[in-house]
Amino acid sequence: MKLARCEYFDTGVFWAVVDVAQNQVTPICGEFKDWAPAVAAGRGISSVRFAGPSLPLSKVRLLPPIEPVNRVVVAGANYAKHLVEFGLQAPAQPVAFLKAYGALIGANDPIRFPPLTEELDHEVELVAVIGTDEIDLENPLACVLGYTVGNDVSARDLQRSGPAGIGMDLFAAKSQDQTTGLGPWIVTKDEFPEGSPRLRLTLKVNDEVRQDGSTAEMTWDVGQLIRFVQQRSSFAGGDVLFTGSPAGVGMGTGVFLKEGDVVEASVEGIGTLRNVVSKKNCA
Amino acid sequence: MKLARCEYFDTGVFWAVVDVAQNQVTPICGEFKDWAPAVAAGRGISSVRFAGPSLPLSKVRLLPPIEPVNRVVVAGANYAKHLVEFGLQAPAQPVAFLKAYGALIGANDPIRFPPLTEELDHEVELVAVIGTDEIDLENPLACVLGYTVGNDVSARDLQRSGPAGIGMDLFAAKSQDQTTGLGPWIVTKDEFPEGSPRLRLTLKVNDEVRQDGSTAEMTWDVGQLIRFVQQRSSFAGGDVLFTGSPAGVGMGTGVFLKEGDVVEASVEGIGTLRNVVSKKNCA
Repeated sequence: MKLARCEYFDTGVFWAVVDVAQNQVTPICGEFKDWAPAVAAGRGISSVRFAGPSLPLSKVRLLPPIEPVNRVVVAGANYAKHLVEFGLQAPAQPVAFLKAYGALIGANDPIRFPPLTEELDHEVELVAVIGTDEIDLENPLACVLGYTVGNDVSARDLQRSGPAGIGMDLFAAKSQDQTTGLGPWIVTKDEFPEGSPRLRLTLKVNDEVRQDGSTAEMTWDVGQLIRFVQQRSSFAGGDVLFTGSPAGVGMGTGVFLKEGDVVEASVEGIGTLRNVVSKKNCA
Repeated sequence: MKLARCEYFDTGVFWAVVDVAQNQVTPICGEFKDWAPAVAAGRGISSVRFAGPSLPLSKVRLLPPIEPVNRVVVAGANYAKHLVEFGLQAPAQPVAFLKAYGALIGANDPIRFPPLTEELDHEVELVAVIGTDEIDLENPLACVLGYTVGNDVSARDLQRSGPAGIGMDLFAAKSQDQTTGLGPWIVTKDEFPEGSPRLRLTLKVNDEVRQDGSTAEMTWDVGQLIRFVQQRSSFAGGDVLFTGSPAGVGMGTGVFLKEGDVVEASVEGIGTLRNVVSKKNCA
């Protein structure tokens, strides 16, 4: 099942079940917390009640599938080859940080080009969506509602601007307004084999492949990352967890994003974000 | 004017005007965004409409004066003497990061002792509360609703656990559930002289003074910090900005917080947080 957060003209924002083949989205009754735990528990489409008639998928705006009250957690340093691009050794444990909600954009929204950076970069990532408030540290994947695609767009020059001894400025690099693609929808966990997903990730810029990896290459799998974060700061249902990006980013190649670039981030079995980089003087 | 976010038995959560001398809180009508911009603009008590009869201050629970949808931004490395405690040089620019909302506690709530740390530490801070969605970079203090007190409780061993080359693990150190005191209320900007506040900050543990500084010692004043953050990731009305802590923390002295410690963080003209450190095995 595909679950999207949508906007349709003046009807406001709603969650919906997506049927791509039929070009339809069908709005869901109630709040995320009313149905997400049952979906995470594997009760499928019987977990949701429909709120009204279907709308054409092609006519709705796909929003990031997370509500403003929820938290965006990013676990970095999770693909050994990507760390080489930063001249880093593989760390002994994961590292996590928070991204501002305002950094998020939907699947087809423009990527704002932040005025302070000359080195705007892409990072395709598998993103886990937490469905429940309770996290079982012995079985962390039980809390997962499903998976979506993220493009953790980063300002590399600002990332390096952090003070010596404190470290990378991940806030300046990764919380810039309207830069991080998330979506197009959540594919529920029951559509994948059990365990941490093993899926191909690709990122293209103007049709040229820049990143091509697999979530099977992760140093820490999704369950291990959820447990690591939960032991430090508790998840709530609706929070999302970015799980790191494979090699091929501009930091390694020296080729950064430019105005007008068409950036397509895809995860096998989920979908594609297609975001165009705006002119730099845009607000 | 003092503005608090309160809970009173089963009446739910509400904002209120506080009269300490009369031991009263008077609930306010409407949402934060309905009255906060007018208060930030200096229109005082005429900006708020009262929703009902006053309640005894001593009977309400004082919550952190920020709603769950808002963002907790921390600007660190802002007091030169405090940096010495970490063996750091003064950086060329501020550094900011996000703290999880779930880390916050109210003025009289217990400080949860996170199970992963042996080095729980205190940091008294002046906290600016943003009142408007629009931030004028030429006059950043115009957006400030008022000021409150923060105690940015930090797990120092976890702070050092970040990977080499990436830096301090500020997420593990500073987003632990129910550790960061915030409150007891917001004192509106009109109660202070114009400009960045110059106020004494003190922190006592079991009545012994551990930190005693002044916000006049900040490397970057409140307006400069707001501008620095805003240029990287936009504020919204209701967000809060921690502005750094003066010298005297356990990281410098080797004396960390213990179970049962009574921690009192005060800022002159605002008030005091009084939080007791829980037993470590508490959830």
